[in-house]
Amino acid sequence: MKLWQKDSTATAAGIESFTVGRDREFDLLLAPYDVQGSIAHVTMLGEVGLMTAEEAATAATALREIAVEIEKGSFVLEEGVEDVHSQVELLLTRRIGDTGKKIHSGRSRNDQVAVDIKLFLRAQLLELKNDVRGLFDVLQGQSERFKDVLLPGYTHLQLAMPSSFGLWLGAYAESLADDLLLLATAYEFSNKNPLGSGAGYGSSLPLNRRRTTALLGFSDLHYNSVYAQMSRGKTERFAATALAAIGATVGRLAMDCCLYLNQNFDFISFPSELTTGSSIMPHKKNPDVFELVRGKCNRLQSVPNELALLLGNLPSGYHRELQLTKEIVFPALGELRACLQMTTLMLGQMEVRRDILNEEKYRYAFSVEAVNALVNEGVPFREAYRRVGNDIESGNFRYDTSTELRHTHEGSIGNLCTAEIREVFEKVAARFQD
Amino acid sequence: MKLWQKDSTATAAGIESFTVGRDREFDLLLAPYDVQGSIAHVTMLGEVGLMTAEEAATAATALREIAVEIEKGSFVLEEGVEDVHSQVELLLTRRIGDTGKKIHSGRSRNDQVAVDIKLFLRAQLLELKNDVRGLFDVLQGQSERFKDVLLPGYTHLQLAMPSSFGLWLGAYAESLADDLLLLATAYEFSNKNPLGSGAGYGSSLPLNRRRTTALLGFSDLHYNSVYAQMSRGKTERFAATALAAIGATVGRLAMDCCLYLNQNFDFISFPSELTTGSSIMPHKKNPDVFELVRGKCNRLQSVPNELALLLGNLPSGYHRELQLTKEIVFPALGELRACLQMTTLMLGQMEVRRDILNEEKYRYAFSVEAVNALVNEGVPFREAYRRVGNDIESGNFRYDTSTELRHTHEGSIGNLCTAEIREVFEKVAARFQD
Amino acid sequence: MKLWQKDSTATAAGIESFTVGRDREFDLLLAPYDVQGSIAHVTMLGEVGLMTAEEAATAATALREIAVEIEKGSFVLEEGVEDVHSQVELLLTRRIGDTGKKIHSGRSRNDQVAVDIKLFLRAQLLELKNDVRGLFDVLQGQSERFKDVLLPGYTHLQLAMPSSFGLWLGAYAESLADDLLLLATAYEFSNKNPLGSGAGYGSSLPLNRRRTTALLGFSDLHYNSVYAQMSRGKTERFAATALAAIGATVGRLAMDCCLYLNQNFDFISFPSELTTGSSIMPHKKNPDVFELVRGKCNRLQSVPNELALLLGNLPSGYHRELQLTKEIVFPALGELRACLQMTTLMLGQMEVRRDILNEEKYRYAFSVEAVNALVNEGVPFREAYRRVGNDIESGNFRYDTSTELRHTHEGSIGNLCTAEIREVFEKVAARFQD
Amino acid sequence: MKLWQKDSTATAAGIESFTVGRDREFDLLLAPYDVQGSIAHVTMLGEVGLMTAEEAATAATALREIAVEIEKGSFVLEEGVEDVHSQVELLLTRRIGDTGKKIHSGRSRNDQVAVDIKLFLRAQLLELKNDVRGLFDVLQGQSERFKDVLLPGYTHLQLAMPSSFGLWLGAYAESLADDLLLLATAYEFSNKNPLGSGAGYGSSLPLNRRRTTALLGFSDLHYNSVYAQMSRGKTERFAATALAAIGATVGRLAMDCCLYLNQNFDFISFPSELTTGSSIMPHKKNPDVFELVRGKCNRLQSVPNELALLLGNLPSGYHRELQLTKEIVFPALGELRACLQMTTLMLGQMEVRRDILNEEKYRYAFSVEAVNALVNEGVPFREAYRRVGNDIESGNFRYDTSTELRHTHEGSIGNLCTAEIREVFEKVAARFQD
Repeated sequence: MKLWQKDSTATAAGIESFTVGRDREFDLLLAPYDVQGSIAHVTMLGEVGLMTAEEAATAATALREIAVEIEKGSFVLEEGVEDVHSQVELLLTRRIGDTGKKIHSGRSRNDQVAVDIKLFLRAQLLELKNDVRGLFDVLQGQSERFKDVLLPGYTHLQLAMPSSFGLWLGAYAESLADDLLLLATAYEFSNKNPLGSGAGYGSSLPLNRRRTTALLGFSDLHYNSVYAQMSRGKTERFAATALAAIGATVGRLAMDCCLYLNQNFDFISFPSELTTGSSIMPHKKNPDVFELVRGKCNRLQSVPNELALLLGNLPSGYHRELQLTKEIVFPALGELRACLQMTTLMLGQMEVRRDILNEEKYRYAFSVEAVNALVNEGVPFREAYRRVGNDIESGNFRYDTSTELRHTHEGSIGNLCTAEIREVFEKVAARFQD
Repeated sequence: MKLWQKDSTATAAGIESFTVGRDREFDLLLAPYDVQGSIAHVTMLGEVGLMTAEEAATAATALREIAVEIEKGSFVLEEGVEDVHSQVELLLTRRIGDTGKKIHSGRSRNDQVAVDIKLFLRAQLLELKNDVRGLFDVLQGQSERFKDVLLPGYTHLQLAMPSSFGLWLGAYAESLADDLLLLATAYEFSNKNPLGSGAGYGSSLPLNRRRTTALLGFSDLHYNSVYAQMSRGKTERFAATALAAIGATVGRLAMDCCLYLNQNFDFISFPSELTTGSSIMPHKKNPDVFELVRGKCNRLQSVPNELALLLGNLPSGYHRELQLTKEIVFPALGELRACLQMTTLMLGQMEVRRDILNEEKYRYAFSVEAVNALVNEGVPFREAYRRVGNDIESGNFRYDTSTELRHTHEGSIGNLCTAEIREVFEKVAARFQD
Repeated sequence: MKLWQKDSTATAAGIESFTVGRDREFDLLLAPYDVQGSIAHVTMLGEVGLMTAEEAATAATALREIAVEIEKGSFVLEEGVEDVHSQVELLLTRRIGDTGKKIHSGRSRNDQVAVDIKLFLRAQLLELKNDVRGLFDVLQGQSERFKDVLLPGYTHLQLAMPSSFGLWLGAYAESLADDLLLLATAYEFSNKNPLGSGAGYGSSLPLNRRRTTALLGFSDLHYNSVYAQMSRGKTERFAATALAAIGATVGRLAMDCCLYLNQNFDFISFPSELTTGSSIMPHKKNPDVFELVRGKCNRLQSVPNELALLLGNLPSGYHRELQLTKEIVFPALGELRACLQMTTLMLGQMEVRRDILNEEKYRYAFSVEAVNALVNEGVPFREAYRRVGNDIESGNFRYDTSTELRHTHEGSIGNLCTAEIREVFEKVAARFQD
Repeated sequence: MKLWQKDSTATAAGIESFTVGRDREFDLLLAPYDVQGSIAHVTMLGEVGLMTAEEAATAATALREIAVEIEKGSFVLEEGVEDVHSQVELLLTRRIGDTGKKIHSGRSRNDQVAVDIKLFLRAQLLELKNDVRGLFDVLQGQSERFKDVLLPGYTHLQLAMPSSFGLWLGAYAESLADDLLLLATAYEFSNKNPLGSGAGYGSSLPLNRRRTTALLGFSDLHYNSVYAQMSRGKTERFAATALAAIGATVGRLAMDCCLYLNQNFDFISFPSELTTGSSIMPHKKNPDVFELVRGKCNRLQSVPNELALLLGNLPSGYHRELQLTKEIVFPALGELRACLQMTTLMLGQMEVRRDILNEEKYRYAFSVEAVNALVNEGVPFREAYRRVGNDIESGNFRYDTSTELRHTHEGSIGNLCTAEIREVFEKVAARFQD
């Protein structure tokens, strides 16, 4: 009956649309890696005799052509084609006929997607490392440039002691160097091969998984097939963990910048083309970029939790919702990279206010210096502390701020350890195999 | 006026109680590390001349005595003493008089707590590694023991293909080996010295931070003083990240066990003293341990998020709420260790049902084997697939399950790669410096 | 200098692209509400004398024309136009010239967006209520249809007592009725007017905020201007809270369905066009729809947390990241509506297996019935329990399952209280003013 | 064998300790409600004939005696008694013998705990409402007291327009009034009776659930027995949602206070006994209370998420981890109450700085006032805006700040609508049945 047919078609379309969702959009990003994985797979199939050498060579050549088209941007998901894997297979069989159908021997959709995601994330995490380096370099550069400019240091958001722009900016550089530890760990985890685990329970065909591991440049394989399947979701979680850590550093830097741009602080400034005006208050220079960096970085903190909620209490074995990790993690990668690049751009053009600490209102920031100066002159600490305390209470506290502040120990004003911090960075950066 | 006085006292007590909260309880755990940090600090003070050699030696000796008392369990926070740092200082001055008051030169409460937490977490993460190893060992042992016992494998929670107990248990062993990557990263981050950063802005006194780094066995220092302060909270977050990852693995294993204990599956069993009866249904064997492991491990997933919420959008510099990280992270460490130990205990006594896959209802699990068997006999894949499909549809599908299932490739039934997975584990375990 | 210019232009474009982000896409959804808010605003301006009556009428007429175009779908954000508010203003001034520029008197972008979001969410929450009703109706219908079909009830995932499909399905209907409480609360909160609060600090112009409240059909206004601004983000959070609650119910139902579709349970079934086949196992009917409903509903649980992270520790006053709430909440609304509709579609076509409880393996589910039967015959409870317990232990337990199970109390098998639960639903539904 | 026995005992003890966890500590809080629920249950049992009238009366009387002991504080969980329910039953049978054992007819541990938690939360949410009212009152009082004192208003954390202390404090009062909506919803949900649902599948005994509903003062019952069981966890989630909402308001207020106490703002002050000094800087007055309020309130934001993670993807039916909701939600209730009380205490003693806006650096805050003043004199808006803009750019902008700022519209400076906001509060407060 027609009416029924119509309903049924509508139903099917509704289900199709619901189950595919936004997946096609993210799948396109996987295209080059899907082809790369397929080339390795057919090469191995040719070697173990599941394809003839000739078939494997033909398939590999055709796949390389498709790779070129992807790079050129002419690859699209055709209407009615479910996903990137089907599209690649379709293009292949159009080109080389039935041989194309053989490339699925010993492979399931599950390990195919898993290896695509590994390859994609491995490449993205490498890019991310480069973006982190970009910001690290600017932070270290500005830290050195402004190393002699003092800044009030706060604890409890209360005026505490002198700090410096060198110290403040250098802190975020070192923070990024340590965040890189988690990024390197995510990279290391993304660098293991799940291909050959089939639908999660292996295959009775004589595959050579070490060979595809080598062909794809992975450092190792996920051995156990059930576990290789479990690494779906887990790979994304490791990556998310690193994103959140870097986001925490960059977001906090953005918060500092918003505060220091506030007129009550007025510590830093930016060229007007980097801030936003107000339609009603011409004096305003709104730090929209930093606010959005802060917001986006704060939202990145939620990504590991989103994945935990998505994957919580699922028994082992593939489940369809694994598809949804893509729409959680892929945009997050882009957001973080944009935040890193925008922050690099902003900080590179930042100017700082000099002589801040000469202002009368900051004089109490020197009370600890005054105490320590007395201690260095031989006055016992308790006595020095009492004297300075009395001066403050009676309103007589003064400190000669023209005296240079030259802390000597590692990591303080006067000894920023910029080179040592770079060394920390480079040591972790070396864990990424470019 | 008396009434007012009373109010004022009550107010002070209320504020005291609110601000201290549960902190004293967690502070006690830090006692041995606080003393350890103080010994390193006074040793260095003696070397750089901020204490005389004799003073430093006296203080170090007294601190060592306190350390012994802590180990013996006779150390308590006395009534009215605010925290562990004050208690240690109090004991010290009681013993050695005014010299005790000198040990605070060039140190603030902020870097003192920071180093205590580093030392505590470093030790805890090492213990955790050992607990992970305990479960890893049992999983590998049982995986080998049951390596020939088949189990249905599911995808979409639908019967899919044959798996095995060896494969299933080995998967979780390998998962733990990879989780160790994050634990090692957290350990590496906990192994950096913040001592000497003062209140977060360094000190004008001539401290030697590399020396305390060496004395405390840290692998490196957090150089920048502002950053050393920032590492508060961040150290806890790195640890939390590792807890969550291990928790995800163990929680999922617990979910599998709950499911496999369900009568509709009935794959595994445990001695009755490890399960719980019901007050009204004598046939029941409730898997309470696994349910609680699952629940506790799921809750562990929230710890990084709790820390992110606690610390979000705080400008740089110390804030009092950093105190609260202890009550988030410290109990979580204990919970995870208990979960690991209980799961180890349970799995060590697990028995499995044999011949599951001989049951008629699981016969379709062999359809892929049947297809592959035909392929191995030379039948083209499409034709093989069509034949088996027809058999299934007509209800004629049969598969000789007495045929041994011997997948040859890495990580499948018949080739569990138990040794290789242990190697993965040991390689990461070696990153921990015992 | 040209080179500089080029760089500067590129910089500006980069910042533009970063700050606008995905906002244009979500802004389009606000278009009808932006126009609606503007009509109310100009009407009020005309009444208080900030526009002439004629000007106000002209502007209102032109805005109504734009509303028609939006409804027809011919409204677009033109290239270079920043947001929907600018686009509406542009269309207006094209039409009525300088009068168009007057509509901003006593309004800022901040209260304009705030009122748009209120109106949009109010409408969406109403739609959502209708979708919830759709699923509620199907659940109650099927609950009645299958009210006599028994199902094993589980506790601890262990076989416990008889349940029924009527009880199981009716439970989810009642759950939705209670979830509606939070939806009604979110609706009530969305039904308050922030318009007239300006940039968050009011206006010296003689606005009449009660009048726009009435014109827009709001039930009340957010009085305090600072608070009206604070309601940005908070409105979204209230909505998110309701989404998460409904999602929790629907996700859990989906989990049940996935489990009951598993071959070891095999309690329910669906027409094959509603499930997905496997490319290699013709016997499989994968519950992809339920898996994706489960996944999407689980992800919805994270939305309140995402907002909390985004907005945490921001001092009062507008911040630019408030823009990002749209891309968190707006898609979530669509996802939940899709989940409700798909679940409604699926459950409407669900079939259940009858006589499940006659299977031998479920006989112990009747042990409590047996005990209670003896109690009803006058045997003391302890004695009855002992007797049944002994029977079970000796393997002699039998129960005549042909006996009808007719629990009489409210909410048990035999007395589902379907009408009473509908009454609960309708009472809450009446809180929404259509 | 002895050795084995020892092991076995140790194992049992380990399992006991793991499964009980911190439950005994929270269980004690349920004691009065457990007795209250039991009284209602036995009364009903007596009426429907499952106990004789005399037995029911005896049991009720003995239970009332236990209730008195609990109130006096003499009730404890004895060594070896598993939980509060067992302890109450034990006390009862000691007193009235075998009759005590009859009170469990038609009740399971599951619905017993469920009703205890409902009663406990219902009482707690009522207390919480009173604490919210306490803070609301102080906020309104101080808002009126300081209604004429101006404060700079910020957007993007940039100086924007004049605000006032009246406006600022009144905003938080109104925010609490709206938060009460969610608290009332949680209360409404806690006010439904799950008793009589047994282990989640009802009972074949002729219970009268409407009667216990009336006896316990519930407004309605959870009808469906499966759903009544599902309300475990969900009741806690509804409560958590309200806690998080109130926490968001109070935490943000605390952030404002920390900022306004910072020396660069210096807007507010507190008596020194309410702030904390520094051991090294005598000038410091640290806002520890507000920092801890902020931290604790931020952590409260995570509670709904913790519950979501704990309960995610659990199929219907009781699971043991439901026990863990207590240790998540119960302490959170106490934390929020403490935060409300401390904030009430602090704000009640707050002083504000007057004449802030007379400082030169804030003059630009009046630019919008200047524009609006010209508009009110008849100058067209665009022209007025241009003139003021030019003045600002050339540094000639001046505004006579002695002019009183008297905005007339609802919710702005000069018209705080304090009474209307109180009305909003009282309307929601009336939804709680005291």
